[in-house]
Amino acid sequence: MAKEKIILGIDPGTTIMGFGIIQVVGQKIALIRLDELLLQKYQDPYLKLQKIFERTVALIDTYHPDEIAIEAPFFGKNVQSMLKLGRAQGVAMAAGLSREISITEYSPKKIKMAITGNGNASKEQVAKMLQQLVQLKEIPKNLDATDGLAAAVCHHFNSGKTAGGKSYSGWGSFVKQNEKRVVKKGQSS
Amino acid sequence: MAKEKIILGIDPGTTIMGFGIIQVVGQKIALIRLDELLLQKYQDPYLKLQKIFERTVALIDTYHPDEIAIEAPFFGKNVQSMLKLGRAQGVAMAAGLSREISITEYSPKKIKMAITGNGNASKEQVAKMLQQLVQLKEIPKNLDATDGLAAAVCHHFNSGKTAGGKSYSGWGSFVKQNEKRVVKKGQSS
Repeated sequence: MAKEKIILGIDPGTTIMGFGIIQVVGQKIALIRLDELLLQKYQDPYLKLQKIFERTVALIDTYHPDEIAIEAPFFGKNVQSMLKLGRAQGVAMAAGLSREISITEYSPKKIKMAITGNGNASKEQVAKMLQQLVQLKEIPKNLDATDGLAAAVCHHFNSGKTAGGKSYSGWGSFVKQNEKRVVKKGQSS
Repeated sequence: MAKEKIILGIDPGTTIMGFGIIQVVGQKIALIRLDELLLQKYQDPYLKLQKIFERTVALIDTYHPDEIAIEAPFFGKNVQSMLKLGRAQGVAMAAGLSREISITEYSPKKIKMAITGNGNASKEQVAKMLQQLVQLKEIPKNLDATDGLAAAVCHHFNSGKTAGGKSYSGWGSFVKQNEKRVVKKGQSS
């Protein structure tokens, strides 16, 4: 029997955090949850960050994902918006790190490429493809939720490939991957 | 008897995280710890973030600070470095948020102003002033640790003032400060 895997995909932003959770058995993908956390109503920037942290921890503790995939743009309009985005990404990542769950980040282009075969596809094209892939009855009106789902599906498609994204799976796997870089106890250098 | 307060000051960076912990009784400041977390040796960016998160949580659980102050530059060279800095700030903030401790951020200029009276003071001038304020025997060679300490002392000097920095003290105090913005149970709008 193929092993089951739960993947949580997140698109962390400062106004909306979109997320999708999928269950993968072999090559079959089932949608568990598709939703978004609205942050516009909170004016305090720390409250936004706290909500992102709390929701991510709550999703982890409810659905027990094996892996987390994050949509992470590497470029932005200006330094101010990138600092805010970095903080939002940081607290979402900290939630995963606090529960020792592997995190992999993908650029928006890489996600579009994985889902549609075209790195410049529109949000609508990505949503339409996702609708078929996870058998969504209808496409959500707000496409931020599907961005989180797209990250999860992209991560599934990239599983087993080494060049899928930048990932880290906790100290244990770091040691495994970097045995030469880790100084063992009783070793002098 | 004046109430004791413990303040943890952090200067979160992607190569070094400097931190200082002070105990304040009335206007008397005593240094509890002055140290830095070196991150250069970790090449994996997630491992850096994990180390920042783990160390900050460990400092909170060891010294039980009442408040956290963070040195947070709002401007930077480019969007890439600001994204990295935002992530480092985000995980340090998430550590505080996860333990429900109030966080206040101060710009480097505001910290220099609070410590030396000059917003353009050099790192050395700030360190020398701190040496007198907390009775340091000698100034540390690496001035990243003193940047964290400076944030803590700046926060102490700004306690009680409303315009000290941007702060957030958990949902409870948010409600207190923003009663009109919070919809109570049973209220229709």
